[in-house]
This record gives sequence, structure tokens and C-alpha cells, in this order.
Amino acid sequence: MSPPAAAAIAGLKSLLSDRLVTSHAVREHHSKDMSYLPAAMPDAVAFPQTEAEVQAIVQACAEHRVPVVPYGAGSSMEGHTIPKRGGISVDMREMNRILEIVPEDGLAVVQAGVTRKQLNTELRATGMMFSVDPGADASLGGMASTRGSGTTAVRYGTMRDNVMALRVVTPDGTVIKTGSRARKSSTGYDLTHLFVGAEGTLGIITELTVRLHPIPEHVSSAVCCFPDVRRAVEAVIATVQYGIPVARVELLDETAIANANAYSGLRLAEAPTLFFEFHGTGAWVEEQARIVEGIAEEHGATGFRWSTDAEERAGLWQARHDLYWATKARRQGCELFTGDICVPISRLAESIMAARADIDASPLMGQIIGHVGDGNFHTAYLINPNDPAEIAEAERLAEKLVERALAVGGTASGEHGIGMGKLKFLRREHGEAVDVMKRLKAALDPLGIMNPGKMGQEG
Amino acid sequence: MSPPAAAAIAGLKSLLSDRLVTSHAVREHHSKDMSYLPAAMPDAVAFPQTEAEVQAIVQACAEHRVPVVPYGAGSSMEGHTIPKRGGISVDMREMNRILEIVPEDGLAVVQAGVTRKQLNTELRATGMMFSVDPGADASLGGMASTRGSGTTAVRYGTMRDNVMALRVVTPDGTVIKTGSRARKSSTGYDLTHLFVGAEGTLGIITELTVRLHPIPEHVSSAVCCFPDVRRAVEAVIATVQYGIPVARVELLDETAIANANAYSGLRLAEAPTLFFEFHGTGAWVEEQARIVEGIAEEHGATGFRWSTDAEERAGLWQARHDLYWATKARRQGCELFTGDICVPISRLAESIMAARADIDASPLMGQIIGHVGDGNFHTAYLINPNDPAEIAEAERLAEKLVERALAVGGTASGEHGIGMGKLKFLRREHGEAVDVMKRLKAALDPLGIMNPGKMGQEG
Repeated sequence: MSPPAAAAIAGLKSLLSDRLVTSHAVREHHSKDMSYLPAAMPDAVAFPQTEAEVQAIVQACAEHRVPVVPYGAGSSMEGHTIPKRGGISVDMREMNRILEIVPEDGLAVVQAGVTRKQLNTELRATGMMFSVDPGADASLGGMASTRGSGTTAVRYGTMRDNVMALRVVTPDGTVIKTGSRARKSSTGYDLTHLFVGAEGTLGIITELTVRLHPIPEHVSSAVCCFPDVRRAVEAVIATVQYGIPVARVELLDETAIANANAYSGLRLAEAPTLFFEFHGTGAWVEEQARIVEGIAEEHGATGFRWSTDAEERAGLWQARHDLYWATKARRQGCELFTGDICVPISRLAESIMAARADIDASPLMGQIIGHVGDGNFHTAYLINPNDPAEIAEAERLAEKLVERALAVGGTASGEHGIGMGKLKFLRREHGEAVDVMKRLKAALDPLGIMNPGKMGQEG
Repeated sequence: MSPPAAAAIAGLKSLLSDRLVTSHAVREHHSKDMSYLPAAMPDAVAFPQTEAEVQAIVQACAEHRVPVVPYGAGSSMEGHTIPKRGGISVDMREMNRILEIVPEDGLAVVQAGVTRKQLNTELRATGMMFSVDPGADASLGGMASTRGSGTTAVRYGTMRDNVMALRVVTPDGTVIKTGSRARKSSTGYDLTHLFVGAEGTLGIITELTVRLHPIPEHVSSAVCCFPDVRRAVEAVIATVQYGIPVARVELLDETAIANANAYSGLRLAEAPTLFFEFHGTGAWVEEQARIVEGIAEEHGATGFRWSTDAEERAGLWQARHDLYWATKARRQGCELFTGDICVPISRLAESIMAARADIDASPLMGQIIGHVGDGNFHTAYLINPNDPAEIAEAERLAEKLVERALAVGGTASGEHGIGMGKLKFLRREHGEAVDVMKRLKAALDPLGIMNPGKMGQEG
């Protein structure tokens, strides 16, 4: 351990006591995430219970110039929480209180360690829901920091759209609040959106005010499969362009369906498949359903099956969310190297076709799944993380994927973020704007202690 | 004229020729906006036609430390475009080309001087619309800079939600691009949202990529009046909480209705009135209509009148947009001193009642209108701008209005912005976060030349 880290830890010991941990096991747990990326050990892991403790941690680290790495649920896919340069990993799990639920204003106030499932469980009696649903049961602080989304973003938006206000401990240990409880505001620079997606490089989010949505009166879902991926995607494009507010529309290619069948005990036909969900009042859900069924059939869909049965629907979406595990189960000891591009909807079919062709021509096993209503899809390549050749091949595929996305006006990441895995794409996507990002980082974190070596310092 | 301004102007003369104007009339036109705030003359007005010319202007001003004040349509209500410290007013009206319309991706790319009506006229044949509609025919660059909105924000969002990407000349004369054409992205700090609402203090927006929405298949509107303001607002709250996606819902109090009747030749009953509009497919519009009519009647609405007639509807909304002029017409030589708070929807009735009581107890004439579905409403006090006692009285009312909004978690401005008129409220609303804003301003504009003396430097 470096002398500065030792000094910071010593200074915090009396405040945090056994909530400042230096054991190998706990440090190791915080050295990695859900990606293939190489682990790096923190010097210690802190488990603050209050905002004042977070402040104290940041102040101690600022005093000794020790890295501070915010840690939510550890479900990052791009190495966000890996303490690249050591320091203190600040695990927010004990700051998991739901502070306020105000159904009449469609908002909740939570500490950053609250997870999405925890919040939705608590909301059940209120008739409201928190909509953003990445696959993992992520913490809301983490989801905000990566500007995360999931299957319902096409209808209800991403964390960008669902975070109304924040409390943040800035790199000098000051607490600020951003935003308000009003639906809109024209006062001041939009600091909320600066911290949403900043990946813990500008401060630690301690508290969030998030939007809630009424649980829809009626929900209807449908599954249908297509002769090929192109026609499946074209059906989605037509649906979106028609203006149907689908609540969810997910594409699973034939490989993904096979993985889901094997892992989750489904018996779906192994063909490119769309999962649809519609939310609304009764007549409206029925109207959307009819229109989309017509569009799908025009694009060659078969086996169109509607369901309003809640249990069947939950099973299907659980299988979708479990695809990370289903895919890993296909090859022992493998890790997933994931792509996560998002393109304008009109370029989606060609993007997915090209990605599929790349996988087919590669020795790696891979699948494509997507939140296709947004133009966002994931490739997942199964790699042996100890085989440099496989990593290199996955990197080659990911590179081609991103270059094509940028060429059509898209982005290198729809929802997983930059982390460590995609740092090299930051400048390719944003050009000289990266220098502006670096100036913002330097202005707010002049000592460079917040999640160092990542966005705002490199790229 | 100061020697630095003279030097900057001399340096730009050969590039801009007669598009760099120092005549008194043109400077005077750019010395004020639509507010009561005191005018201030720029040293010159530039009319750039290209981004390179904007760059040259900013570079010349940076070299000589001369203020640069971006100017759109001059329809600010809070003094944004008033050159408080002189310098060059950069009028973007000649950068008014619509560069690209991509209906299949629901987006358009426009230069900053394009106005909302110009864009919608151009869009007519495409089946798409640009939704954001402040009263004035504002420029899109100006609307983005103030994070503007209007009557349809409750359904389609504000400029925050409808700007996807920007090109910006930063205060050192660099051109950057922010955002992408993808619907969502998790790459990099959210610079788009930093410039949206920055009120021209961090750079000059030269180009915007904005979201378009399909023109709805069916539109239906309704007017109804209520025995008192409280019940009108309670009907709105119930509608929003029910989850009905109203496209518009505007409140006009009895004074506003009287003004609209007089100016626009309407014959509405002089009582608190709601204008509703619904967008969607046929069955869905009908379903929304039925539900809302039921809610309104439960709250004592009378004279409920539905209309699907486009001309009648257009007349009603024009009257709504013309209220600025209708109100000014009530008193010769007066200016409007406007309030613009936004509160959580559950606190809207009490906020409006209190605002109305304040007006009734004041010698000033005033009205209340509101984009009430968002929780946003405007007070307008008719003042003689040359009578300090009347300004003081309006300030006293505005102060009370804002204090009450902040006390319930609201904001000092829903859509008009901070400008000069609301600078004093910035710290009251945002506390220490204002210091973070100042650090961002200093990082991006170290010379302090961009719209100086406003947000980022004061508050």
C-alpha cells in the first residue's frame, strides 16, 4: 500500500471503524466487474452510511491525493468500478434508504445504493413504477452514473430522462444539490445532466430524485419470429416510424433464442424473434396491438402470439434479463465481450446485418440482442479472458462495429458507458469536444482523484 | 466606443463588410428584448452567414477581450440578449438554413437562426412536426439556449428533450460537436445538455439536430370553464396523475380570458378556463377525451366543448400565443413583468391561488396563464417601466412567487430562463451548486467574454 493511501485509511479508521475494510477478499470483490477487463485492487473498501461519511472519505482522499472509486452494485460491463490506480472503493450499498415516495408528483427520493428492484418492490402499493431496467439489479447511483437504460427506454426514457435531481459530493468534499422537483426548469447550467453519465469522475452521487410512472392499466405482450434478422428489424423501424409508443421491443437473434431456451427452459422457435410490450388503457393497448400485428405480418412474421397473462410475460422478460448468464453458460470459464452501439433507427437493419456477418465470419461464438426500438443493440462475443488472441479478435469485431455506428451518426455506447473498455472510442466519437470534457474534469477535480484514468482524463 | 471594441470591429470589417453594423438604429434594436429590463447598447451588430464567420467573430473578441452576445429572435422575456457590457451582438438571423430533414429518423438538422415556424412550414410535406412552441416565433438556437418550451412540453418535452446534438463555437473560437443522431448514448459528459440552457454564456450554438415527432393521426381539442381557479387546477392534477398523455393543457384565468376576448375577438365566458388538446390514433383520442371530460365534470367544469375542427383549434391556440400582445394592449405604454415558476404538480393549486391572491391585493393589474400540465405557470403584471414604484411592486410580487415555488421544491423559472431578470434567484435555488457553475464557466470561458455579467459569473 502506498504511504498516501495508508495515511488516508488511517485518518478514516476512527470514523468508519469496521466499515473500512482492507481484507483481501473484500478488496478482490471490488477489483472487478461483469466485464472481461483485467482486475485492479483497491487499497481499501469503505461502506459509508451517511452523506457526511462520504464527504469525510472524499476529503481524506483529497488531502492525501488518493483515488476515490464509487461502487454501486458492481454490475458494470465496461470496468467503471475497477480501481485502475488503487485507492478507496466507496461501496454505496449501505446507503440504501428510500427517503420519500410522492406518487402524486410521480417522484421518489432515494439514496444512491437503492437498487431498481428494491424501489419497485417498495412502490407496489402506490400504483407507480420506476421504469429503467438494465439487466442487472443495479443501484440507482450506478445507473445514473453510466446513464443506463434497458428494455423500457423506448417508451419511458433512460436515466437521462428519469433523474430529476441529485445530491452530489464533489471532489473537494462539498455537497451540492442539482435540479428540483419541478418537471422542467430554465435556471442555471444543467448540472444534473453533467453528473448523469459522468461515471463517477466528477463526484459521488449520494441521493437521487427520480421520476415514477403510473403502472399501466393494461399491459399486453407479444412474441413473433421472422425468417431473417433484416425483416425483424424492418418491422421495428416501421412500428417506430408509425409513432406507436411501444413500451418494449426487443430483438433476440437465433443464437440468443437458443441460449435462452437452454438456460431458461423456454421453447421458442430458433429464429430471429421480437418481444413486444404495450402499455395503456384497454382500447388503446388493443389498437396498438392490432397495428403492430399488421406491420409484423407485412414483414413476414409468423407464430404471432399475444399474451396478457402476467406470469407468462414475467417469465419471458426474466429470460431476456438472464441472457447474460444464459450466454456465459454456453462455454465454461468464458467472459462476455460486449458491443453496445446505438444508431439512427433507419440505419439499424444494415448495422445489425453487418454485425451478424462479422460474427458468422469469426471463430468466436457470438449473439445479437437489442433494445431495437431505440436503435440500440448488443453484440456479445464469448471469449477466454486469458487468451490474448481471442481478446484481440473480439476487439477487432468491436472496432468494426463502432466504426460503422459512428459512420452513420450513431454512438459507441447506447447504455453501457465508456468505463475502461471503450475509452479509445471517446475521441473518435466526440473529436475536439473531448478537450472540453477534460477542461470540465480539471475544473471540478483539479487533483484528479475521482475515478482516475478514465473519462475526463483519457480518451 | 472602447478602444478594444473598436479594434475588434476594425479587425472584422474586411471579413463581414456591411454585415458588421454600427448604426444607431440597428444597435438600438439589439439593445433590448421583450422584457421591461433596461436596454444596453452593443458596440456593433454582426450578421454572420457561416460558422467560420462566427468563429472569426469570437476569435477577434477573445483577442481584444470584447463581449460577445448571441442574439436569436430577440424574444427573450428576461434580458438574455441585452449587451449588459456592450461588445458585439451576434445576430444569427442569416444562418437560417434547414440543412437536413430525415423523417425516417425523426430528426432535422438546422442552423441556429432557423425559427420554429420556418421549420414547421418546411416539414409540412413530411408528416413530421417540431413540437416546441414558445409564444414567439423564436430561433431554435435561442430556444435551446434558454431551455425553452411552450404548450406542448407536457407531452413532447422541452428543448432539453428535443435537442439531440449541437455544433458550438466555444469561447476560444474552437468548433465542437456534441451528441449524435442516436436516440440515446452513454459516451462522454453530456455537453449537449450543458449548452442547452447556458444562455449563450459558454459559447455560440451554430447548428442543432432536433427531434421531430409524427404529426398525430387525430387531434381533438376541448375548452371548458370552472367556477374557480382551484377546481380548474385540481382537474388538471387529476388528469396528469391518471397518466393521460394530454398534448396540451393550458389554464387562462378570468383576466386572461377577458384580454384574449378583447384582442383576438373570442367570445369565451370570463371564468377560469382550460384549453385541452389530445393527439393520437382515433380510438385513443376518443378514449382520452372521455376520461378527461369525466374528470373535468367531477371538478365542476361547465360548457365542455369538443372540437376536431382544425381552423377553430388554430384560432384558439393563436389567441393563447397572442396573450403577450393581448395583455400589453390593456394599458398603453406598459411592459409585462412576468413570473414563470414551475412547481411539483401536487402543489400547483395552492401556488396559483396564492399568486392570484397576491395580484388581487396589489394595485397592479395582472393575470395568470399556465402550461399547467407541467406545473408551470406565468404571472404577468402590467407595469409602467418608467415608474420605479410599479417595478418595485412587481418585484415584490415576483419575489413572493419564487420564494413559495422554492419552498415546495419548484424552480424560479420553468421556461423563460435567468437572463438578467432572475439572476438574484440563482443562488437561492441552487445554493453552492452556483459555485460549481462558476467553475465551469471559468474553465470554458476564462476571459469571460461570452454574454458577460450573467449566469456563470453572477448569481
